[in-house]
Amino acid sequence: MAARSRSESILVTNAHDGQRSRKPDELIVEEPMTVQLDAVTVSTTMRTPGHDFELAVGFCFTEGLLAGVHGDTVPVKGVRYCAATGSAAGSEFNVVSVETGGLAPAPRPRLGNTTSSCGLCGNDAIDELCDRLSLLPASLPIPLDVLQSVPDTVRGTQELFEVTGSVHAAASFDADGKVLLTREDVGRHNAVDKVIGRMLLDGQLPASGLGLFVSGRASFELVQKAWAAGFSTLVAVSAPTALAVHTARRAGLVLAGFVRNDRLNVYAPERL
Amino acid sequence: MAARSRSESILVTNAHDGQRSRKPDELIVEEPMTVQLDAVTVSTTMRTPGHDFELAVGFCFTEGLLAGVHGDTVPVKGVRYCAATGSAAGSEFNVVSVETGGLAPAPRPRLGNTTSSCGLCGNDAIDELCDRLSLLPASLPIPLDVLQSVPDTVRGTQELFEVTGSVHAAASFDADGKVLLTREDVGRHNAVDKVIGRMLLDGQLPASGLGLFVSGRASFELVQKAWAAGFSTLVAVSAPTALAVHTARRAGLVLAGFVRNDRLNVYAPERL
Repeated sequence: MAARSRSESILVTNAHDGQRSRKPDELIVEEPMTVQLDAVTVSTTMRTPGHDFELAVGFCFTEGLLAGVHGDTVPVKGVRYCAATGSAAGSEFNVVSVETGGLAPAPRPRLGNTTSSCGLCGNDAIDELCDRLSLLPASLPIPLDVLQSVPDTVRGTQELFEVTGSVHAAASFDADGKVLLTREDVGRHNAVDKVIGRMLLDGQLPASGLGLFVSGRASFELVQKAWAAGFSTLVAVSAPTALAVHTARRAGLVLAGFVRNDRLNVYAPERL
Repeated sequence: MAARSRSESILVTNAHDGQRSRKPDELIVEEPMTVQLDAVTVSTTMRTPGHDFELAVGFCFTEGLLAGVHGDTVPVKGVRYCAATGSAAGSEFNVVSVETGGLAPAPRPRLGNTTSSCGLCGNDAIDELCDRLSLLPASLPIPLDVLQSVPDTVRGTQELFEVTGSVHAAASFDADGKVLLTREDVGRHNAVDKVIGRMLLDGQLPASGLGLFVSGRASFELVQKAWAAGFSTLVAVSAPTALAVHTARRAGLVLAGFVRNDRLNVYAPERL
């Protein structure tokens, strides 16, 4: 299968100090991708093409869709593109099927009739994670100066950012600040799922003792994904949300943010 | 009903040039909210509390869930919080019901069995929008120097950003660069839906001749929302995706991005 472009050159009008010119601009590609788990559609997301199998597997894993009855992870038996006859050109890459031979639990519908429940609050959402994820094991903390160095190190591996100037990245790194794996995507969640999906496919989970880097902010869902994968530390370039901090504290996940060359904030644990 | 906090003070460890200190940090609040349309759950999203009715109505409208059979918009008869007896404290604000008396079309399920379809590609997604949205009427273009001035003007209205240093904003503005309405949220999409929901509730749609500002990048979905609301111009601080540009060109929407004090790029129309 041909590699698909992750960026596209488009002619734009540039206005600079009142002068106009036409020039090509390299923009990030965004295409829909549907994820199926054992023939059931579980998600359609806008993503940057590339590493699609990792994205599909990582999404299913971090959303708890591969959780077995005994708290184990159901093995992935296959991942494939849809290849129905007569697909429009290009669209055969927009559905990815993850197959477990029916071992994955049936996903809960996201759209349905009203129940008597009056909705979750943030604490309920944390409680749900605590029910299905174990507290992270204590590990030697990664030194703060290492955490501070990570954004610059990752930047050197952001190929798409280099070309487009605007795309999110996620990366795994070790306690020495060595970057192990970088993935880029129009969505932060997707970049994280691609990293975690690759590690799952390589048998490298849980990611005990390792750090996860995300460009941008740290939301509840990114903490959820880092926790599910067993990372010990999550580093975000920008700030976390309040709920992300509460979740990280419950998980035993070190959460650092607002990282600049000479400073950073540690939001979790509550006391270093 | 008591106003709920949109930011929360959390004690964090700050490391600066090797020195550590403890200080309070004001973080953005993120809580789940479920939207129901005529008693059917159509979405659960993480959002910053506040302007919840606008968010619910704006979401339903921009996603096409209020589209009547003749291309008109089904009138919203009521919007209310869930108020079931025995709700956990706080959670009564996390379900919002939009009511049309059953006039809204039944929403399509997002989770279901495999169909023979092999998934959408980006062009299909644009074609779907073209089927349900009309080409935007030509209007006098907003001068480029006005577009350049908008980010700074909006910044002065970003109350939550002022406090937290990290939250998205959307704003509507007129051809003179006057900011009409600003909304802030942990999610860009939510901030846009809040602006559009407010305008719908006030009978101010379509937003012909007006501009929509978004902090951050312009994705396909943000162009979709701007188009659905009838804005003539979308200005993003950062870059659009390639699909966002193709969609704006099909819609007749002016799309500007990478706006700095002395420069901006115009991505759509193809030629100014």
